[in-house]
Amino acid sequence: MKHQGKRAGVVLAGCGVYDGAEIHEAVLTLLALDRAGAKIVCLAPGKPQRQVVDHLSGQEAVGETRNMLTEGARIARGEIRKIEEIGAEDLDLLIFPGGYGAAKNLSDFAFKGQDCAVEQETERLIKEMYAARKPMGFICIAPVIAAKVLGEYRPLLTIGSDRQTAAAIEAMGGKHLDCKVDEVAVDEKNRLVSTPAYMLATGIAEVAAGVEKLVREVLVLSSGK
Amino acid sequence: MKHQGKRAGVVLAGCGVYDGAEIHEAVLTLLALDRAGAKIVCLAPGKPQRQVVDHLSGQEAVGETRNMLTEGARIARGEIRKIEEIGAEDLDLLIFPGGYGAAKNLSDFAFKGQDCAVEQETERLIKEMYAARKPMGFICIAPVIAAKVLGEYRPLLTIGSDRQTAAAIEAMGGKHLDCKVDEVAVDEKNRLVSTPAYMLATGIAEVAAGVEKLVREVLVLSSGK
Repeated sequence: MKHQGKRAGVVLAGCGVYDGAEIHEAVLTLLALDRAGAKIVCLAPGKPQRQVVDHLSGQEAVGETRNMLTEGARIARGEIRKIEEIGAEDLDLLIFPGGYGAAKNLSDFAFKGQDCAVEQETERLIKEMYAARKPMGFICIAPVIAAKVLGEYRPLLTIGSDRQTAAAIEAMGGKHLDCKVDEVAVDEKNRLVSTPAYMLATGIAEVAAGVEKLVREVLVLSSGK
Repeated sequence: MKHQGKRAGVVLAGCGVYDGAEIHEAVLTLLALDRAGAKIVCLAPGKPQRQVVDHLSGQEAVGETRNMLTEGARIARGEIRKIEEIGAEDLDLLIFPGGYGAAKNLSDFAFKGQDCAVEQETERLIKEMYAARKPMGFICIAPVIAAKVLGEYRPLLTIGSDRQTAAAIEAMGGKHLDCKVDEVAVDEKNRLVSTPAYMLATGIAEVAAGVEKLVREVLVLSSGK
């Protein structure tokens, strides 16, 4: 396998589309990485989620608390590390699945839009990876994190075609590219890849098509310096 | 797509390998069904899980309660039905991903082995599907449910090669077939397909190979009467 042993960080900010990592996007990322022979390193901040959402009703489960690391461990089958303990020297590439975890836990974009802040250790790791010229992938809504942290480098990103989110990405310094569900936006200069996934997808097979391309492109970028 | 519109029930007894549906097995089942053009109907009993397990420590989270339907809704992105409301007339086929949810929630096999009981509505739906000659797929540890409910028909099943679980399947009336991780056991007479998945798999790509074959075989069986 061409990418045997490459150390691939995957950030799982909980477990579930409405309050954590989008499960399909996360699992399909793991599948594409494993098929390529990469060594998967699941990561999450060891902090509480901002909310717990009842995924049946769609309503917030007021008073309930869950932890990003503990819930991310469900997707990772227990094999997960605190992002606080990981630096760019431990990884060859880093991928962020989507879900509201990216916009509620790893950032507060869901509440503050372009004025959002990014969770401190997530921001640190992204900056370290960027400085080390190691590639990163951002799926679904996660590109808003890249726009916020790396805005000064004018990153090329996609979240599909949603005008409001695209405008926020531009306001944070990014350049937004409209993109189909089974395509990716590649920023070779900044070593960033993004794909719309459930920002556009109507089913999991569409998500798989985009995520597989994203993983392939991030792996290719990780081979060139 | 050859199997366009076939109504595929997928039972999700929670969300997480140690207390619910195994997430990778569940998601890869949904992917294979969507790629084949099937209409996915996620299902779960509207009942509490038997346990909540902290997937980071592996320890039971004593005092915490979660509901199979509400947690299954995380994997289903909210699109899930109570199994109590579904009959064989609503489905063309039915698939059970594994995870301890199959052995703690849908049955108590994890505690009682061959003397287990199967959750009442799950047992009813399996019996209805069998009577209607509609095929079923059982992944990972889930074949123990089939052995318990359908033991009188001597179902051919696999959970891989674990001697103790295989012996329990035989004791409940099943015939156990040793099977590699990327293979399936097909019981054409009883219209049952099973695959070992994480009973044997060392990574998600191995799980995908077996689950893809299982979904294909169940779909093929659903075309013949």
